[in-house]
Amino acid sequence: MATEKWSKSIDLSHHLSDLANARTMSPLKGLQKYFGRENMIAFAGGLPSTDYFPFATVSADALVADSFPLAVPSPPSSSPFSWLWHLFGSDKRTERTSRIVVPKAPSPDDGGLNLSVALQYGPATGMALLQAFIQDFSAKVYQPAFSDFTTLVHTGNTDGWSRVVMTLCNKGDTIIAEEWTYPSALASAAPFGVRVMPVGMDAQGMRADSLRQLLSEWDESKGHRPHVMYTVPVGQNPSGATMKLERKKEIYDICVEFGNVIIAEDDPYFFLQVDDYVPKAERTPKPTVAAKDEITHFLGSLAPSYLKIDYQGRVIRLDTFSKTVAPGVRLGWFTCNPLFAERLERQGETTTQSPCGLGQTLVTKLLQNWKYEGYIRWLRGLRIQYQLRRDLFVDLLSEEFDLMQSPGTRDQSAWNGCTVYTAYPKARPRGLLTMSEKSTIGAVRKPLFSFVPPSAGMFVWVKLHFDQHPMHRPRGEEEEETLEMQLWTALADAGVLTAPGWFFVADKQNTPTDPNVEGHMRMSFSNAEAEEMKRGVAIFSKTLKDFFKN
Amino acid sequence: MATEKWSKSIDLSHHLSDLANARTMSPLKGLQKYFGRENMIAFAGGLPSTDYFPFATVSADALVADSFPLAVPSPPSSSPFSWLWHLFGSDKRTERTSRIVVPKAPSPDDGGLNLSVALQYGPATGMALLQAFIQDFSAKVYQPAFSDFTTLVHTGNTDGWSRVVMTLCNKGDTIIAEEWTYPSALASAAPFGVRVMPVGMDAQGMRADSLRQLLSEWDESKGHRPHVMYTVPVGQNPSGATMKLERKKEIYDICVEFGNVIIAEDDPYFFLQVDDYVPKAERTPKPTVAAKDEITHFLGSLAPSYLKIDYQGRVIRLDTFSKTVAPGVRLGWFTCNPLFAERLERQGETTTQSPCGLGQTLVTKLLQNWKYEGYIRWLRGLRIQYQLRRDLFVDLLSEEFDLMQSPGTRDQSAWNGCTVYTAYPKARPRGLLTMSEKSTIGAVRKPLFSFVPPSAGMFVWVKLHFDQHPMHRPRGEEEEETLEMQLWTALADAGVLTAPGWFFVADKQNTPTDPNVEGHMRMSFSNAEAEEMKRGVAIFSKTLKDFFKN
Repeated sequence: MATEKWSKSIDLSHHLSDLANARTMSPLKGLQKYFGRENMIAFAGGLPSTDYFPFATVSADALVADSFPLAVPSPPSSSPFSWLWHLFGSDKRTERTSRIVVPKAPSPDDGGLNLSVALQYGPATGMALLQAFIQDFSAKVYQPAFSDFTTLVHTGNTDGWSRVVMTLCNKGDTIIAEEWTYPSALASAAPFGVRVMPVGMDAQGMRADSLRQLLSEWDESKGHRPHVMYTVPVGQNPSGATMKLERKKEIYDICVEFGNVIIAEDDPYFFLQVDDYVPKAERTPKPTVAAKDEITHFLGSLAPSYLKIDYQGRVIRLDTFSKTVAPGVRLGWFTCNPLFAERLERQGETTTQSPCGLGQTLVTKLLQNWKYEGYIRWLRGLRIQYQLRRDLFVDLLSEEFDLMQSPGTRDQSAWNGCTVYTAYPKARPRGLLTMSEKSTIGAVRKPLFSFVPPSAGMFVWVKLHFDQHPMHRPRGEEEEETLEMQLWTALADAGVLTAPGWFFVADKQNTPTDPNVEGHMRMSFSNAEAEEMKRGVAIFSKTLKDFFKN
Repeated sequence: MATEKWSKSIDLSHHLSDLANARTMSPLKGLQKYFGRENMIAFAGGLPSTDYFPFATVSADALVADSFPLAVPSPPSSSPFSWLWHLFGSDKRTERTSRIVVPKAPSPDDGGLNLSVALQYGPATGMALLQAFIQDFSAKVYQPAFSDFTTLVHTGNTDGWSRVVMTLCNKGDTIIAEEWTYPSALASAAPFGVRVMPVGMDAQGMRADSLRQLLSEWDESKGHRPHVMYTVPVGQNPSGATMKLERKKEIYDICVEFGNVIIAEDDPYFFLQVDDYVPKAERTPKPTVAAKDEITHFLGSLAPSYLKIDYQGRVIRLDTFSKTVAPGVRLGWFTCNPLFAERLERQGETTTQSPCGLGQTLVTKLLQNWKYEGYIRWLRGLRIQYQLRRDLFVDLLSEEFDLMQSPGTRDQSAWNGCTVYTAYPKARPRGLLTMSEKSTIGAVRKPLFSFVPPSAGMFVWVKLHFDQHPMHRPRGEEEEETLEMQLWTALADAGVLTAPGWFFVADKQNTPTDPNVEGHMRMSFSNAEAEEMKRGVAIFSKTLKDFFKN
């Protein structure tokens, strides 16, 4: 893979939308040589005096970078759930914090990290120190295959993707997306008259053969061939699938070959990649890695970003601090080629301007205190937390149901090649199946649902076997409630909120499955406390069993 | 003026753009009755556990509400500028602050003001306590003429106006704006194919007669009649003009009668309304007001918002904390009818989502500590600061130039009816004119520039008499630099940055004045320290005099 300047090899300017092309540079930009000078007397702008900013100091108690352990604790075998309440999360009594203080007054060595800067108007590219951190971070962690990549802040990936749509799409354009996808992404694009071409999925997310077929058979009478792809390649929302490098290469090459497609890589769960699920009884501690190799080992364990193979600069990567710091900071960044970055910056200037200075400052100061190594340490701790949560959720399901492992088959195309867990009503409460029961269970009992434990992210994507439901029949023309929504409502009435499958269908006119035959439910394990999760899974179990008796 | 529900009297739905109409409500909104319930187990959303938010506490030292004095100090007559360095701004040695602390953990009586809420995903309408504050504030301060007005946060007026454009304008639409206007507002609208119809101005900003003429003579072959007005009615940018209630009524009625126009009232300088400029020697202390009447007196002294006469709900008011708290908080709000508010909320959900939680929290906590009365006290102190700054800037001009007062005349249409100050080279350094000199000055010396001391805001809008320049000739076809830009460059080379007039021209094809004959310069007095301001005005004076000698 050659590391070359994208601009020398291909011209991406024809991707810009009419809207992006119509954005003007501020005419004062031509006078920038004066604005950059030191000691100029500023009668030009509408900047308030910093004397009038009512915050003299802002400070925070921030958790230390190694707040969460790196190793998964082994449960005591005697009592499967007594350790539940201390399994994950923080113990407030032992919480260690360090103090962050940001004064208003600038000091010579603060790098601009003071409230006089933070509370003033700021650049749409982000505060200088934050900008430097994310540029360095993207370089080290994602290792883009082209050299002149640019980073630029936004106010979270929803804002980021919305700006990508306005920068690249014209009315009547079609975007490529996974057939099950994040509905908010489509809601951002739809008002601009942008349609969606859903692509089939398997255990790694978007399928390359499906993409190739759709692009090669594209009917130009339906509109221009799609030139923008929206994809969540890690911990895909809702399926939880994670795409490996090989598949990314296949898809990238198809984007080059067939469609000249720009890839918008929405990757909020990148650092929440976890090990494969291992049933509780079979779990063993992982071998430790030498301290000096820990960062390399960690980064090497993550499915790489599309940037790593982006030798043409056709990837716009969206990073967010929402899952790694907190959603409320409303802060993230683009990594992309400088041509798109300049247009995205112009757009920022006439909409959000810069993200909130208080948010930027506290996040930057936190990162500055932690340093790159500390932030990586924080991320490593975080992913173990999500692994513990994923494991507990599946463990709890295995307490409530008899779970049978099987390889995904061709007809379960979405799960081809992975280990699928299928849930059956328990033969006897809390008992273990005998070997003979295990081998005959499929013939004797009816499966309720199946899932693949997710390899990243926050969700278990459950496939409901409504073909086993006594009331099941294919969905008719009439507007009666689907079994999927009947179950959703029964769960909600019982006190458990989930996200129904239809919510994630990319093309509502052509659902991948009939929700009366094969329903879906996205269940999040990211938020509930351990005890609450246990109660929730118990309610899910009882409600589901009752529902299938109807 | 009847106080009635707008929705009962007129239908505003035809104002919505195709883009706004195409925005969908989240399909899950139909399930809201479940999401609002208490004690639901949340397996639905992608919310991280609050355990993983790295900020345990955020705190701030906030200035007390009465940090700035309410009275303008009288200068000692002996030494006109010895008091300069203590005239405005804060004295760090006597600064009084109170401590704001926001912990992560919720408590029963915190109203949701904790980091568990602030750092989580939040509603596009704003945090509950902030939402309550601004709703109450808009009601008390602006007194909308219709009862069911709604408030909704945005990330500053640039974001606010940009969302108004997308909510109300289709491609090919024309918006109404003052002939000199805020260029960023046009830069937000132009990419959407939205053109501008500039309206003539006078000392109160937009002229009603000019608006009536333009709307009544509108040529439908040029496109749809404009149905959106962008206006800065207080401390107009760049002119500094402020519109009184009577003029607003005239314009509002024309919007009803002729154009069915929605008024977007961008009002960042509302609380920076100041008293008329009085030459230093003639200044006297203002009579004090009884403490119990202070708030009423203050609010009564401000030119009212368009909301006050908005009996049909056709005003979208844009408020920002940028000038009253700090630009870096990126926080402001809409006040408008519920129909538009709902569409603006949907738009927020697919772009910025909620503004930064740290910014919202610290501003809300500040307002909660200050209370409504304290915030009003803060605003009263702030406007005195801007009055001091405006006065000092004009005082400094009067030190450098001989300033002659005259009533604005019909041919100076923009200043018809106000007191215009015209600057002449000083007869002798720092001397006072004799009565006879005063009466003959216009005949003997050539005027350099004129201005009206602004009644609000941050800027002095200077009209340059280039017709008196030896090199002056009307601008030709060729692209040579205008006298306006030549002067701008000379000032920048001398170390003073100003904003050139052409930057604010609404219709660049039809400039209101020829910048070779009547140039303009917007000079901001909002930011410089007193000493810096003095140096800047001295440089301006020297550069201008040299320039006119060319």
